[in-house]
Amino acid sequence: MFYHRKELFRPVKVGSPDARFGQFLLEQFGGATGELKAALQYWVQSFHVTDPGIRDMLQDIAIEEFNHLEMVGELIKLHTSKIDQTDVFAAPMFAMKGIGPHLVNSAGECWTAAYVDEGGNVVRDLRANIGAEAGARQTYEALIKCTDDPGTIETLTHLLTREVTHTNMFMKALDGLGKLDDPFFGTVEPDASVEITFNLSQGGDFRGPWNSGSLKYDADPQPKGGMPVPTINSDDEKGTVAGEKKVKESA
Amino acid sequence: MFYHRKELFRPVKVGSPDARFGQFLLEQFGGATGELKAALQYWVQSFHVTDPGIRDMLQDIAIEEFNHLEMVGELIKLHTSKIDQTDVFAAPMFAMKGIGPHLVNSAGECWTAAYVDEGGNVVRDLRANIGAEAGARQTYEALIKCTDDPGTIETLTHLLTREVTHTNMFMKALDGLGKLDDPFFGTVEPDASVEITFNLSQGGDFRGPWNSGSLKYDADPQPKGGMPVPTINSDDEKGTVAGEKKVKESA
Amino acid sequence: MFYHRKELFRPVKVGSPDARFGQFLLEQFGGATGELKAALQYWVQSFHVTDPGIRDMLQDIAIEEFNHLEMVGELIKLHTSKIDQTDVFAAPMFAMKGIGPHLVNSAGECWTAAYVDEGGNVVRDLRANIGAEAGARQTYEALIKCTDDPGTIETLTHLLTREVTHTNMFMKALDGLGKLDDPFFGTVEPDASVEITFNLSQGGDFRGPWNSGSLKYDADPQPKGGMPVPTINSDDEKGTVAGEKKVKESA
Amino acid sequence: MFYHRKELFRPVKVGSPDARFGQFLLEQFGGATGELKAALQYWVQSFHVTDPGIRDMLQDIAIEEFNHLEMVGELIKLHTSKIDQTDVFAAPMFAMKGIGPHLVNSAGECWTAAYVDEGGNVVRDLRANIGAEAGARQTYEALIKCTDDPGTIETLTHLLTREVTHTNMFMKALDGLGKLDDPFFGTVEPDASVEITFNLSQGGDFRGPWNSGSLKYDADPQPKGGMPVPTINSDDEKGTVAGEKKVKESA
Amino acid sequence: MFYHRKELFRPVKVGSPDARFGQFLLEQFGGATGELKAALQYWVQSFHVTDPGIRDMLQDIAIEEFNHLEMVGELIKLHTSKIDQTDVFAAPMFAMKGIGPHLVNSAGECWTAAYVDEGGNVVRDLRANIGAEAGARQTYEALIKCTDDPGTIETLTHLLTREVTHTNMFMKALDGLGKLDDPFFGTVEPDASVEITFNLSQGGDFRGPWNSGSLKYDADPQPKGGMPVPTINSDDEKGTVAGEKKVKESA
Amino acid sequence: MFYHRKELFRPVKVGSPDARFGQFLLEQFGGATGELKAALQYWVQSFHVTDPGIRDMLQDIAIEEFNHLEMVGELIKLHTSKIDQTDVFAAPMFAMKGIGPHLVNSAGECWTAAYVDEGGNVVRDLRANIGAEAGARQTYEALIKCTDDPGTIETLTHLLTREVTHTNMFMKALDGLGKLDDPFFGTVEPDASVEITFNLSQGGDFRGPWNSGSLKYDADPQPKGGMPVPTINSDDEKGTVAGEKKVKESA
Repeated sequence: MFYHRKELFRPVKVGSPDARFGQFLLEQFGGATGELKAALQYWVQSFHVTDPGIRDMLQDIAIEEFNHLEMVGELIKLHTSKIDQTDVFAAPMFAMKGIGPHLVNSAGECWTAAYVDEGGNVVRDLRANIGAEAGARQTYEALIKCTDDPGTIETLTHLLTREVTHTNMFMKALDGLGKLDDPFFGTVEPDASVEITFNLSQGGDFRGPWNSGSLKYDADPQPKGGMPVPTINSDDEKGTVAGEKKVKESA
Repeated sequence: MFYHRKELFRPVKVGSPDARFGQFLLEQFGGATGELKAALQYWVQSFHVTDPGIRDMLQDIAIEEFNHLEMVGELIKLHTSKIDQTDVFAAPMFAMKGIGPHLVNSAGECWTAAYVDEGGNVVRDLRANIGAEAGARQTYEALIKCTDDPGTIETLTHLLTREVTHTNMFMKALDGLGKLDDPFFGTVEPDASVEITFNLSQGGDFRGPWNSGSLKYDADPQPKGGMPVPTINSDDEKGTVAGEKKVKESA
Repeated sequence: MFYHRKELFRPVKVGSPDARFGQFLLEQFGGATGELKAALQYWVQSFHVTDPGIRDMLQDIAIEEFNHLEMVGELIKLHTSKIDQTDVFAAPMFAMKGIGPHLVNSAGECWTAAYVDEGGNVVRDLRANIGAEAGARQTYEALIKCTDDPGTIETLTHLLTREVTHTNMFMKALDGLGKLDDPFFGTVEPDASVEITFNLSQGGDFRGPWNSGSLKYDADPQPKGGMPVPTINSDDEKGTVAGEKKVKESA
Repeated sequence: MFYHRKELFRPVKVGSPDARFGQFLLEQFGGATGELKAALQYWVQSFHVTDPGIRDMLQDIAIEEFNHLEMVGELIKLHTSKIDQTDVFAAPMFAMKGIGPHLVNSAGECWTAAYVDEGGNVVRDLRANIGAEAGARQTYEALIKCTDDPGTIETLTHLLTREVTHTNMFMKALDGLGKLDDPFFGTVEPDASVEITFNLSQGGDFRGPWNSGSLKYDADPQPKGGMPVPTINSDDEKGTVAGEKKVKESA
Repeated sequence: MFYHRKELFRPVKVGSPDARFGQFLLEQFGGATGELKAALQYWVQSFHVTDPGIRDMLQDIAIEEFNHLEMVGELIKLHTSKIDQTDVFAAPMFAMKGIGPHLVNSAGECWTAAYVDEGGNVVRDLRANIGAEAGARQTYEALIKCTDDPGTIETLTHLLTREVTHTNMFMKALDGLGKLDDPFFGTVEPDASVEITFNLSQGGDFRGPWNSGSLKYDADPQPKGGMPVPTINSDDEKGTVAGEKKVKESA
Repeated sequence: MFYHRKELFRPVKVGSPDARFGQFLLEQFGGATGELKAALQYWVQSFHVTDPGIRDMLQDIAIEEFNHLEMVGELIKLHTSKIDQTDVFAAPMFAMKGIGPHLVNSAGECWTAAYVDEGGNVVRDLRANIGAEAGARQTYEALIKCTDDPGTIETLTHLLTREVTHTNMFMKALDGLGKLDDPFFGTVEPDASVEITFNLSQGGDFRGPWNSGSLKYDADPQPKGGMPVPTINSDDEKGTVAGEKKVKESA
């Protein structure tokens, strides 16, 4: 069960409102790396995760992300509440949709659940979450570089900090499952190709821990699957009608 | 520069074509966890990653994913090339769009770049990739559970295996950067809240490595942000017109 | 600030799990008329609405919708937790994505903020909300018709009931603003055409309160805008090159 | 059956072309509150509405909205036909796509039928339509504030006026069904909770017509649904593996 | 200016309603190759096309497509108006959304203007239209193969026929511009590579009119662009930190 | 099987980086007419096309389009690698997402497979491809008009040139099938209406090759389908309740 109190989770202050920057902030309200994505991803995961401890952690963090979403929304409200301050052509999103946050990213694209990565297995979920936090952190750093308002920077730095904390929590939970540095999980056994790496992009090649040591290196991979079976397509035109002729097989 | 040879990377065989299962396979052709997403995500990352070794690795794996996409497409072709085999209502995607693969998921939703997670920093990219591989592996396991055709299972097991290998490669690259088990990256220093965890979903609470040890536990978090600033909205109706009265503050 | 407790807002019971029906239920979890849309629409509105009473009401209802979302998610979890109960081809969403709710509608399309209707003015918002509640109620009725599990019906009936209550609340708030039955709001004065109705779809015509009384009826509207200005398009081919000739003007 | 005449429904004049403003106008051509959405929403409704009078009204208004769409398209054409007038970076939509209207909103997002709200019941449809007209009116007011071209303002004021008229028509039709101020419709009887309102967002609470009078007020709602049933997920890792321990129940 | 008459453009009759087939028909109402796409594509083109004859043709055909859209909608209405006829699980779209047409494709995905191909140049538009008609024809053939109701087949055959007619019209208009068989149009002169074809997919090679005659054939293309410039990315981690070493250049 | 070499297919040089222009270039990387759409469209077609010659051609061109995608990506990288060069508000896409290409169009909308046009029949595919090439060429011309950097213009002119070449190849293949100027293809015979054209948009009428000669011209089309069957909708309110009365039939 959800509750709400009107007070904000943490302080949100803006010294110099800037509607253009408010439009950038939408990236963390209704964008791919934003707080709504994080909140919903973790919370939806909590329905299918069987481990009650991890389920509790997912819900704790999900609710915190809802609180962050509220803080980002408040930031956007404060940056846009005097929309006349600036040329309407400089912050078109708010000229068209009105002040305050909207569920779009900084380019005006609607939030979509295609951003959400979850399902079926707790290891998969936790790895998706570490990825999600990395994206969120990256966007907060990008935003901090685009403003010099001290209040805004303080709030954004707090939000960035919490992504680091959540990453830490997800890493520790994954490590508790033994899956922080073990690539395998699930019930299907890999086949013998699991130790091979392929040099499929040739020229300027490098060797590193990812294609050496226990991992074998195929420097010049060749096709082993043979020619594909000819297509049978009853909807297509019959036969070979375009008059082409086969050239001598080049390989 | 891209090249192509007609032969397949690895063998693809289908004993008993099943157009309904072919529709499921679309999940890994044009779906959120599919090969197109992986191929494009890694390849797009390679443009902004400065480390030439990791760049090479990203391109090697991206090209392998294109080869896997081709193998999944071939599987779908083989499962659907005798579409008359089955009631058109059982595999509507192919009845409407024709045989072979299409750029949609198993529910018919068009592939979207909203699935792709990349940008700005190599650590962010590598974490996103470990997440992506976990999702791909999960879907392959789901698919394997839905068929009993030996040829199909063999191909899908190979593809699942390679996701494990790629996870291994990304983990080793991330570990080389010291970021496999370090939650922090980037240039913005976290604030003092980085060590706190919040018990925001109460009841049925658990403690584990993610909210104990070096991580402090706030068992009953309270709002510290105060009431939000009243909204100023010149487009809205003026004043308080709906005749409500404030109740005694309940907290 | 958001809080959460593990207990559900209201009871959720399922007697006979049916994964096919679980797929239908996604319509109210991640669909156009579902609880997520309602929760986010009302909550986002609360940022730009200046009237503190209506703002409080919007937040009260938004939080209730989050609780309903949780109940629908729990229903879906219960209907799908024994996925082996049924042919995988009958409930493909869960065969592919795993058990429990996902942020898609019953056809598998990702939730999109394009469903959300809000912005700029409290009257607009409240009218959008009455529309949203009508859609939600309609889908709950459709769902109730598709199941005969008593526990499921009881929960769905409760959720349908609350949409009626919310409609009542929005109507009363709108009536408090004098805008429940007054078509006009905002600051731009309508022009003289405001009393005219046009019979633009002719044949089988009807008169009713919507095109009689104070509303004038133009039975056979004619164009009053003249011919459009010729297009100037420097990117287009020059001149009239396709050899056509003008026919005698037919009107 | 649809017909068309080349003459415009009503005059469209532009004194000072401004491609930047032309981009804003796309909001009412291919945007969420625009004329295409209105036209298609009402027209699609007309297929399932059984009342022949309301069906006639829906088609009359739908056709008028197509005429408005044509007028908005003409406005955009006139504002963009001299695209060289302005820096290409100021109106990127037309620099990329060419002059004239396109089926995108002012941020360049493609029109989607996710904007359309209809189905199953005439009361639901009419309420959706009153909501749609409110959104359209709001955007026209926003546009009028962003230009000072007299011809453009005159056309936009006419289009805004007609949204008021349509609202009036939909209100009268809904009132004829007795559903303008009656929250209930359909065939499923609400349960006993229909008279309760919940104070779920606490602090800064208000009472108004929406949570007083016949509507009871639950000032401090508590969960009545009990703890959710433990999740059973055969795809998830087995058991409780992360080493967490349950804390003393906090409530 | 648009007009409408209640009578249908051409007869629509259904002998044996089949809601499952009604769901397939959505492909031509709200799908990628459907009548809405065609109607809107041609009509939007008419705003920027300067040739008044071709503009007239585009509008004539666009209006016919609106009439076809109405006929397809009527077909869907007739196939679904007795929804109780069939198991709700067999036609979930109508169980959830109600009877009659909706603006989605046969898989339930919302119509999107991303289907529409237009802009900037009449030759581009006409070529896009010939492509659009080919897709529409193909889907009508697919639909005809999925039903044996004589009335439905007759209507669908008429609609297919008209796509052939429109193709003929677009071909004749394009031929009038001299661009039916001339690959070039526009104002930018091609460079010297215009006569070369590249054998980039090797093995199973063929020669035909598309890579012989006046077109030169490069049987084994080599990269001529050199190595890409090293990426400079201030957001990325500094230096080469992952410990990899360069391998001897393999080419 | 796909291979890759690090060297670029053709040279890519930028003299004066301009991040604003880099944002425009996204139109051909992740936009509707861009290289990704072309590459994937042709390659996906190759799975269902039975003619081995045309299949080979489709794959040859698809791979070339992947190479062009790489070149466009390199152009974007070069235009954005010194992002500090310019006001962050002038190139918001890269300020938010980091330097280099992303899978979005110039307005920031995610690439979607809804852009892709393919399926079921080789004639349909080839016509779709001629349309696709026309769109790509048009956008390259638009881009060339927006820059004066010689290196950029040279690369874009090459890419435009290749679209002309591909158009030529598709035209020759289609001509080999006898379908470049024959509107008909497939297995369903058109009905007798195939020779009629309808003057449905009246006023300012023209005659040309598209509605004369062998094509008959119906100057004033009338409805021949009769009134639609009354809707039966059990979910709707019963009877005619809104009190309207029928007017004397106006036609």
